[in-house]
Amino acid sequence: MTRAFRSFSTLVRSLALTALLALGTHAYAQADPLPSWNDGATKKAIIEFVETTTTQGSPQFVPQGERVATFDQDGTLWVEHPIYSQVMYCLDRVPALVKAKPELAKVKPFKTVLSGNREAIARLPEAELIKILAATMTGMPVDQFQSEVKQWLAEAKDPRWKRPYTELTYLPMQEVLKYLRANGYKTYIVTGGGQDFVRVYAEQIYGIPPEQVVGSAGGTKYGYAKDGKPFLTKEPKLLLNDNNAGKPEGIHMMIGRRPYAAFGNSTGDRQMLEYTKGGDGARLSMIVLHDDAKREYAYGPAVGLPSTNVGTFTQALYDEATKSGWVVISMKNDWKRIFAFE
Amino acid sequence: MTRAFRSFSTLVRSLALTALLALGTHAYAQADPLPSWNDGATKKAIIEFVETTTTQGSPQFVPQGERVATFDQDGTLWVEHPIYSQVMYCLDRVPALVKAKPELAKVKPFKTVLSGNREAIARLPEAELIKILAATMTGMPVDQFQSEVKQWLAEAKDPRWKRPYTELTYLPMQEVLKYLRANGYKTYIVTGGGQDFVRVYAEQIYGIPPEQVVGSAGGTKYGYAKDGKPFLTKEPKLLLNDNNAGKPEGIHMMIGRRPYAAFGNSTGDRQMLEYTKGGDGARLSMIVLHDDAKREYAYGPAVGLPSTNVGTFTQALYDEATKSGWVVISMKNDWKRIFAFE
Repeated sequence: MTRAFRSFSTLVRSLALTALLALGTHAYAQADPLPSWNDGATKKAIIEFVETTTTQGSPQFVPQGERVATFDQDGTLWVEHPIYSQVMYCLDRVPALVKAKPELAKVKPFKTVLSGNREAIARLPEAELIKILAATMTGMPVDQFQSEVKQWLAEAKDPRWKRPYTELTYLPMQEVLKYLRANGYKTYIVTGGGQDFVRVYAEQIYGIPPEQVVGSAGGTKYGYAKDGKPFLTKEPKLLLNDNNAGKPEGIHMMIGRRPYAAFGNSTGDRQMLEYTKGGDGARLSMIVLHDDAKREYAYGPAVGLPSTNVGTFTQALYDEATKSGWVVISMKNDWKRIFAFE
Repeated sequence: MTRAFRSFSTLVRSLALTALLALGTHAYAQADPLPSWNDGATKKAIIEFVETTTTQGSPQFVPQGERVATFDQDGTLWVEHPIYSQVMYCLDRVPALVKAKPELAKVKPFKTVLSGNREAIARLPEAELIKILAATMTGMPVDQFQSEVKQWLAEAKDPRWKRPYTELTYLPMQEVLKYLRANGYKTYIVTGGGQDFVRVYAEQIYGIPPEQVVGSAGGTKYGYAKDGKPFLTKEPKLLLNDNNAGKPEGIHMMIGRRPYAAFGNSTGDRQMLEYTKGGDGARLSMIVLHDDAKREYAYGPAVGLPSTNVGTFTQALYDEATKSGWVVISMKNDWKRIFAFE
């Protein structure tokens, strides 16, 4: 009976394996992993990269643990115009801040924000904006900050589409995230935005857990509440400025491996794309070009338009992309559909 | 025929599931996950914690993505006496350093190390030791540092057991790592040691990939090689001092979640253990007491011995452990076997 059980068990296991393998192959052969992408060289580059690096026996095969893909967020995974949603958050927090500290009502950047004068707010110099960011993003316990961001995200709406910011993610990029993960890649966000800010929603929106969000990060201070329980307070001290050269530095610090694929959309992503493409074997560096004024936005010298402070894509960056074999993603030509709500 | 195929396929899938579930349950019910631990309250605390937090329907159930466990390294996962192996590495690198920069041969801490006078080396003040650490761990490309550490690990031997340092890991703790992972926990090292140093071997020894090693971390500098390829150079600039309050701060920065379980062995782990235990629900904070002079080492006021600079376990820490419900692991009483090579 033992022997009978054993051979039955062997049979079941072998059937199980066959069935699972068959199901896997079947699903893979059938479905287009990138249905929101138009067929063409860009889509092909993504699929070829994944097949080359994940097919056993391929000369450029990458073992599963080393499969790292990094994504800029603003302008790469979701809309960044007319201004980063994190800046909108900080501006929206000013009234509550002034309520708690009434003396700020008469002080300049806060006074300007309270006036509601959009043009004056848009003209605020960087140093004044930084004062607003520091005042609204530091000084509170980490948990309190997280609840405040969560609440804002549930209520705030983008001025153009009148939808929550969290709906303004690009469907084609969501497909790339899922396609890479389905093929054993670990996907990371590597953003110039605040790490604590993006971590609040990255899991829900992108399926990326907090520990896979690398961003500009401030220090925290350890202390004890009245009941003796320890907690962390956000400090106005920048530990990592995750922009430009800060991106590869942040990747080294937080991930410790050079990515095999990286996605960006502006000069702030240049070094991350260079660093990725500079590794051995097959590497994919892609850069999103905002050239679709009708369905989203068009901006930057690369499309013959003036440079903006938000998401600069210069002609020099375009030239480097071409010269270095990065793939430029044209929103207008490569994306069949931009948003899930379309 | 299609219908016949479909029902065959359904049958196979259901057999597959049954077989896999049966195999899983079988393995679980049979094997002791912690065979190197003596039966008793300590071992029971670990098993009860895992069952409470991972059994569906348990009031203290923790969803899989939130299952984070953090481990100090030196003195918690492997031997730290007579001195941290990373310090041994730095001392061993001095001859090569002086060969490259002969002017250092006459300068004090390097001269002392070259003399080979063990007592004089042991008496070097912290400021001088830091000079040696900075000189041997920074200034080189990240890749070069990694190869140098790898080579050293392959050759260097611990003075007492005459074995590679990588064999001096505690078998009972290796079992805890595996047991937690088998139950959906993500295991992290959170060490005061150098992040880049520990990352070289953590995957091979502990099954912990680089991105799950949090340690004291220096900055890096982005630059280009002669062939135009970008690389990072290790800079003598401390970004994260991952000791004491720096441990919860590092955990927040690198993981972004409060751990459910934490393991340490000295005052440098105090805040991490407090922070972990201070969370809601079931939390496990454990601290290893080195009380086994025969099989390993015994040190610190908690066992009535003088305090050492390496792995201080004071009476005050012992009292806090008792008061706060941390579990003290006695190497002598709780561990049946300490090393795999025994």
